[in-house]
Amino acid sequence: MENKTQIQSAIEAQGEVVRKLKTEKASKDQIDEEVAKLLALKAQLGKDDGKHQFVLKTAKGTRDYNPKQMAIREKVFNTIISCFKRHGAETIDTPVFELKETLTGKYGEDSKLIYDLKDQGGELLSLRYDLTVPFARYLAMNKITNIKRYHIAKVYRRDNPAMTRGRYREFYQCDFDIAGQYDPMIPDAECLKIVHEILSELDLGDFHIKVNDRRILDGMFAVCGVPADKFRTICSTVDKLDKMSWEDVRNEMVKEKGLSEEAADNIGEYVSMQGGMDLAQRLLEDQKMSQSKEACAGLNDMKSLFSYLQLFQVTDKVIFDLSLARGLDYYTGVIYEAVLQTTSAPAPVCADTQNGVPAEESISVGSVAGGGRYDGLVGMFDPKSRKVPCVGVSIGIERIFAIMEQKAEASGKKVRTTEIQVMVASAQKNLLEEKLKLVTELWNAGIKAEVMYKKNPKLLSQLQHCEDMGIPLVAILGEQELKDGVVKLRAVATREEVDVSRADLIETIRKRTFEA
Amino acid sequence: MENKTQIQSAIEAQGEVVRKLKTEKASKDQIDEEVAKLLALKAQLGKDDGKHQFVLKTAKGTRDYNPKQMAIREKVFNTIISCFKRHGAETIDTPVFELKETLTGKYGEDSKLIYDLKDQGGELLSLRYDLTVPFARYLAMNKITNIKRYHIAKVYRRDNPAMTRGRYREFYQCDFDIAGQYDPMIPDAECLKIVHEILSELDLGDFHIKVNDRRILDGMFAVCGVPADKFRTICSTVDKLDKMSWEDVRNEMVKEKGLSEEAADNIGEYVSMQGGMDLAQRLLEDQKMSQSKEACAGLNDMKSLFSYLQLFQVTDKVIFDLSLARGLDYYTGVIYEAVLQTTSAPAPVCADTQNGVPAEESISVGSVAGGGRYDGLVGMFDPKSRKVPCVGVSIGIERIFAIMEQKAEASGKKVRTTEIQVMVASAQKNLLEEKLKLVTELWNAGIKAEVMYKKNPKLLSQLQHCEDMGIPLVAILGEQELKDGVVKLRAVATREEVDVSRADLIETIRKRTFEA
Repeated sequence: MENKTQIQSAIEAQGEVVRKLKTEKASKDQIDEEVAKLLALKAQLGKDDGKHQFVLKTAKGTRDYNPKQMAIREKVFNTIISCFKRHGAETIDTPVFELKETLTGKYGEDSKLIYDLKDQGGELLSLRYDLTVPFARYLAMNKITNIKRYHIAKVYRRDNPAMTRGRYREFYQCDFDIAGQYDPMIPDAECLKIVHEILSELDLGDFHIKVNDRRILDGMFAVCGVPADKFRTICSTVDKLDKMSWEDVRNEMVKEKGLSEEAADNIGEYVSMQGGMDLAQRLLEDQKMSQSKEACAGLNDMKSLFSYLQLFQVTDKVIFDLSLARGLDYYTGVIYEAVLQTTSAPAPVCADTQNGVPAEESISVGSVAGGGRYDGLVGMFDPKSRKVPCVGVSIGIERIFAIMEQKAEASGKKVRTTEIQVMVASAQKNLLEEKLKLVTELWNAGIKAEVMYKKNPKLLSQLQHCEDMGIPLVAILGEQELKDGVVKLRAVATREEVDVSRADLIETIRKRTFEA
Repeated sequence: MENKTQIQSAIEAQGEVVRKLKTEKASKDQIDEEVAKLLALKAQLGKDDGKHQFVLKTAKGTRDYNPKQMAIREKVFNTIISCFKRHGAETIDTPVFELKETLTGKYGEDSKLIYDLKDQGGELLSLRYDLTVPFARYLAMNKITNIKRYHIAKVYRRDNPAMTRGRYREFYQCDFDIAGQYDPMIPDAECLKIVHEILSELDLGDFHIKVNDRRILDGMFAVCGVPADKFRTICSTVDKLDKMSWEDVRNEMVKEKGLSEEAADNIGEYVSMQGGMDLAQRLLEDQKMSQSKEACAGLNDMKSLFSYLQLFQVTDKVIFDLSLARGLDYYTGVIYEAVLQTTSAPAPVCADTQNGVPAEESISVGSVAGGGRYDGLVGMFDPKSRKVPCVGVSIGIERIFAIMEQKAEASGKKVRTTEIQVMVASAQKNLLEEKLKLVTELWNAGIKAEVMYKKNPKLLSQLQHCEDMGIPLVAILGEQELKDGVVKLRAVATREEVDVSRADLIETIRKRTFEA
C-alpha cells in the first residue's frame, strides 16, 4: 500500500540510526529496538534479510486459549460463578501486581517463585502469587471486617511448568472466601459445601475432600515431641505424603530436618489415620493427643464441622485425614483439599504442585481445590494488628479445563465458538447492498447475524461457513425474493427452505433459534 | 488460637535467623523476607513492635474494584460482549506477559512505557501494552489467516497516571478485530457499526466517531512536501491537534522536527477539514491531493466506507476528519476514534492519553474507542512475512466505568452486589440446624439463599442485612412453623408475611423473585 521508494528511503535512514547506535556502543535494548524498526520497514517491502527472526512463542509456562478452549472455559466459569452467587458472594478485583513487600513473608520457601517486575524507577512490584494475600491486603486497607466475596483471576508462579499435565506459570484461581467473626465452623462448612456443589455439577467423576486442622497438626507435633520452632518445616514435610512414601518422609524429617527418630515414629502413627466424626472423637480420647489443648480445640471443632456437613448433605465425600498438611504458612485452623479420582487419563499434576521442591501450596496428584482458615493474615497488614478471621477455598481450574477438553473431544460433539443465529447470504451477484441492509435490520433487532465480507461470495462458501461454525439458519436473498418482499430461510441441518415475509423474519428467526 | 509459649519460642528462633543474616550481610531481600516472618509471628501474639509498618496501598496507577464497582463493570462488559457476539466474534485469551522482543519495535516512542519483568534467569518478558500485538503474534504463530475475534483483558502502561480522570497504569481494553483478505472497507465499516451500537446502548450521551486513513495522511504529507522519513514523526505531531493549538503543533513540526514552514502551512490547510463523503470527493478533485496515488486510493476507499456506513445506518455520528492521525506505527489504512460529548462532568482524559508526551496510542479528551487497519503487523511476526490484513477497534472502558458510576450515584438507586433471593432466618433461638437444613434444600434447588453464620442471631440483624443487601425475601422459621410444616415468607419491602407450605416454598420463591 505504501510507496516503495518512500519506504526504501525510510529504511536507509533507519539503517543509519542503527549504525550510529552501534558505533556509539549504545545499550543492547536501544539497538534491538531500532533494529526491530528496521526489520519492520523491510517487512513492509516484503523482503526480510532473514538474519533476525522473531521467536514465535508465548513465554515459558504460559499459553494462549483458542476460541474452542475459551468456549469450554466460559462454561466452567459459569458453573463456578453460579455456585458462588447462589451462596451470596460479592466479587472484587485487584491489580495483577502488588507492592513487593505486600507479598513478602507470606509464602515461606515458595517466595522464590514470585515474579518480580524490573526496577524501572519507582516502586518495587511483584506479580500476585495467589488471590488470598491481595484479598487480605484489600480488607486491611479498606477496614472491612465482614465480607463474602469471590475473585476469579490469573496468578503467577515461576514454577517448573509441566503444561501437558495442566501445570502452568500463569493460571486461573477461583477463590471464595468468608471474612468475619462468626460462630465456629459454620462458614468453614459452607466452603466445603461449595466445593462439593461445584465438583458435582462439573461432572468430572468421583472425588473426595480431605480435611484436617492446623491446630490438630500442631497439637500432634507437640505431643509427638517436635520442638515448636520445627512445626512449620515438619509440616512441610508431612505435606509431601501424597507424593512420597512414609519412609522417604520419615527420612527427610530425621536426616534433613534433625527430628528425633522417636518423634518421627510418633507422627507416623497418627498420619496414617483417616475417618470422620468418629475419628475426631477417638482422638479426643487418645491418651497423648488429649494432652494438647490446641489439638482438643481442633478436634472439637472438627466434630462440629462434620455435624454441619451432615446438615449440608455432603459427608459422603469428606474424609478427616491426619496426613493433610498443606504448605502455606498462613493457615491457622481447618484445612482441606479436594482430589479427583481419575480413572481414565494419566493422573495430571495440578498447577501449583512442584517437582521435588517442598511445596507451600502443594496439592496432591489429582487435586483441584484447596483452602482453609487463616485468621492471622489480615492482621499482618493492619497497623494495629486487628484480626479479621477468614476462611476460604480456591478452585484450580487448569486441570478441570484439561478434563473438560478431553471430554468434549471424546464426545465428538462440535463445540460452537460463536452464537450466530443466522447468516445473510445470496446466490446471485451484486446483492451486497441488500444483504448489508438486511443484516443491519437483524442486528438492530438484537439478532446475532453475519454476512460475508465479499461483494460476491459463492453460495457454497457461505453455506460451508455455516456448517463449519454450526450456524443453524441462512437467510437467502435473491432478485425474486426482493421483488416478493420475502427471504428464503434455510435450515442448515435439514436443508429445508421456506419463504418468510420480511415483516415476519425477525420473529421467525427468534422462534426457530430459541427451539434449537 | 496457637499456644503462646510455642509461638514465643518460634519468635526467638526466627530472631536468631534474622540476626545471623544481618551479621553475614545477606541480601536485603533475604533479610526482609525473614523479618517479615518474624513480624508475622509477633502479630500472631497480638503485639507488633510497630517499627516496620506495611505500606497499605495498591501499586501506583492501579486500583481495586469493590463489589459495587464490579456490579457496574459487569453490566458494561455484558453490553460490550453481547454486541461482539451479535456480530459473530469468537474470543481468545493470551498471557499477560509476552517475550520482550515480541513487543519490540511496535510502539515507537511509547516503548519506554512498557513494563518489563525482572530478569530472574530465563526469558526476558514484558507485560502486554495492548491486545493488538499479542493478537498478531497469535495469528502468525498459529498460521491463522481468517478470524473475527474479541478479547477483553487488562493492559499495562507505565504512564503518568491521573486516576481521578480515568487514566490508569493497569486498565481494560475490549478489542474486536477482523483478520482476513476481504473486499475493501466492508469489515472496516462493521467495526464502526459496532462502536456505534455499543456507545448507543451504554447510553453515555452524545458521541461522534472521527475517521481518516493513513494513506490519505501519507499522501497529504507527500504533496505538502514532507520528506518520507519524517512521515511517522510528523504524524505523531498532527496527532496532538486534539490537545494542542495549531500554532503549537506547527511550532513542533518546524522547530523540533525540522519541517519547512511551507510544508507545515500546507498541512495546516488540510488538517482543518472535516466532512463526509462529499469531502472525500472534493479532495479527489483537489489539485495537489489528486497527485498522490496513495491519497486517491484512501479517498476512494473513504467513499466506499461512507456508502457502507449509510447501509448500516450510522452516518449520523461519523465525521471524516483530516486531523485525526493516531500515534501507533502499525496502522496502514483507515483509522478512527470515538469521542464522547460530555456536558456534565469535567471532561476526563482516557486511560491511554499522555500529558505532553508524544502519544503513540494517544486519544483526545473524551475519547473512549479507537482503532484502524493494520495490514502489516502480522507479517512482522511471520518468518516469510506473509501478510494477514486486519482491522479492529479497541473500547477503553475505564472512562465509561467512571461515567456509569457517576450515573449510578446520581440516580440514587441502590446497586445490588449479590443476587440472593431469600434469607433463611429465625426469631427464636436454637434453630441453627433447621435453618441449615432449609438453606441446603434451597441451594440444592438452585435458589440463591443465605443464612447468618451465627447460632442465634437477632431477627432484627437478619432483617437489617436484607435491607442492606437488597434481598427481597426472608424465609422465617419458628417452632410453630416447624410444627405446621410451613415457612413464614416475608417480603422485605412491604413487610407482608404469608405462611407457605414447605412443599410449595421453592416454587413460590422462584415466582416471587422472578417477578421482582
